[in-house]
Amino acid sequence: MGDVDETVADVGEFALIRRITATPGRGQDTLLGPGDDAAVVAAPDGRVVACTDVLVEGVHFRFDWSPPEQVGRKAAAVNLADIAAMGAVPTGLLVGIACPASTPAPVIEQISAGLAAEAARVRVGVVGGDLTRSDTLVISVTALGSLDGRAPVTRAGALPGDILAVAGKLGWSAAGFAVLGRGFRSPVTVVGAHRVPAPPYAAGPAAALAGATAMIDVSDGLLADLGHIAAASTVAIDLVGDLIPVDQRLVEVATALGADARHWALTGGEDHALAATFPSASVVPPDFRIIGSVGRGSGVTVDGRPYTSGDPGWQHWR
Amino acid sequence: MGDVDETVADVGEFALIRRITATPGRGQDTLLGPGDDAAVVAAPDGRVVACTDVLVEGVHFRFDWSPPEQVGRKAAAVNLADIAAMGAVPTGLLVGIACPASTPAPVIEQISAGLAAEAARVRVGVVGGDLTRSDTLVISVTALGSLDGRAPVTRAGALPGDILAVAGKLGWSAAGFAVLGRGFRSPVTVVGAHRVPAPPYAAGPAAALAGATAMIDVSDGLLADLGHIAAASTVAIDLVGDLIPVDQRLVEVATALGADARHWALTGGEDHALAATFPSASVVPPDFRIIGSVGRGSGVTVDGRPYTSGDPGWQHWR
Repeated sequence: MGDVDETVADVGEFALIRRITATPGRGQDTLLGPGDDAAVVAAPDGRVVACTDVLVEGVHFRFDWSPPEQVGRKAAAVNLADIAAMGAVPTGLLVGIACPASTPAPVIEQISAGLAAEAARVRVGVVGGDLTRSDTLVISVTALGSLDGRAPVTRAGALPGDILAVAGKLGWSAAGFAVLGRGFRSPVTVVGAHRVPAPPYAAGPAAALAGATAMIDVSDGLLADLGHIAAASTVAIDLVGDLIPVDQRLVEVATALGADARHWALTGGEDHALAATFPSASVVPPDFRIIGSVGRGSGVTVDGRPYTSGDPGWQHWR
Repeated sequence: MGDVDETVADVGEFALIRRITATPGRGQDTLLGPGDDAAVVAAPDGRVVACTDVLVEGVHFRFDWSPPEQVGRKAAAVNLADIAAMGAVPTGLLVGIACPASTPAPVIEQISAGLAAEAARVRVGVVGGDLTRSDTLVISVTALGSLDGRAPVTRAGALPGDILAVAGKLGWSAAGFAVLGRGFRSPVTVVGAHRVPAPPYAAGPAAALAGATAMIDVSDGLLADLGHIAAASTVAIDLVGDLIPVDQRLVEVATALGADARHWALTGGEDHALAATFPSASVVPPDFRIIGSVGRGSGVTVDGRPYTSGDPGWQHWR
């Protein structure tokens, strides 16, 4: 870690890229790591899964709410969750950072450390990076993954009669956002869930092995993202209200804030749970709980009715 | 293409992502294209080559100098050149764009059209995308590639006794930058070279097949980038001054501006030529011309002497 007073401009582009990509322990799939024109990553079954997500300071994170290391972890997690949502296992990360020249070098180094730490949780390396000047701090991450011979689980395969199940947290990030928005820093469990999501990475490949017909990463809110499955699969999805997992801690936080915990669970984004559909006779993997069913028609309902309390999901522009 | 008065905020995130990734004709290696949590791209030999480069408005491009379509082409080209510099062929592109909500939607659509057009030149698709809000327009591109069973050509394999050769343009982008900086819009050949580089994509795999021992994409300037090969390979590189290709058109532009065309060729970045070293007995591929040799020692010289006119290459922070 460099001097706390050094800026990105002081350290220089190449030196800082070397620090950024100096992952402690390279990933098991890294065949050629950072430092050349491009990296080489294993793609054992002859295919690579790939996705890109961009996080922007002031839009996706605020340093007064989240320290840089947690911002880095979040930037990795949102991409690794997309890989899991295809039923794949991650194999590598690439990161592009644009930031003001006056940015303290330790901020970038801590973001990078967070990226590497989250990557290490799934045993992959940060295999490539770029760093450049910008008035706004922007973190762009690309995740690569392997399907290990399986077909990808898309959003388009849900069939009437399937059951719907979810793995991971729902509404926690929204609760943490509400807490931070009121100027509080606790309870730490919900604030921490907003700062760094905890996607159930292993549940993605497990769902694929269990025969999942469709799957999505819940990034925009459960109802909004199930809407993507319903549209892509041309089916209707109905949730059983009483089966929606609403943790008691969220109920306590909601009560304290005068909010609705169930609304957070149905519409809160950024927890990166995985929602998947399975044939009705399936034994869903242990991380999943059944919350509804797939039928003929279109759209998403709760107990047979459209959900109307508030806005379903959110878009970055609104 | 949308209404010229529509902004990014008017069109909305998902609708615009769909427009961005609606590549005319998907790539031959695209197994699952845009629209899901992640894409799936062929990696026929069980490995994938991957790199990320970030371009920022005001740093890497200016819309008063380059129309959006050409900015998009440049964003693709700089990444595709990195794939070529490993001796690989491109297989797919992913793009993350962060921009102000007030950005006219056609600007983003034209950037995307440029990305897709450059990708189509090498028969690959834009397989994934993300779009989000930012005060600064930032374009992050990830390119994927295939080595088709070959070893990657890194920066570290040059050996004393090797010959040095270069494919592609040198100094053209710097000349175009100088012309635009003086407020001119012509000659169009050099201005066009600055707006959209023309990397010799096919020369990369050709060099690998011809036995290249090291290779690099000339993005920061010939001397600076050869310095990376010399350092990684722990060798010295000497250029023969009279063999440096300096096009007559650059000489004419330099004369008109009171500049030095040879200096542009030696230090100008962003042309994305490919510089490679080959065993001395090699027949270098037709796109390459021999410009020097590799010896014992360290550093880069011209006719045996350090090059001192001006700054060798450039860093974005300076």
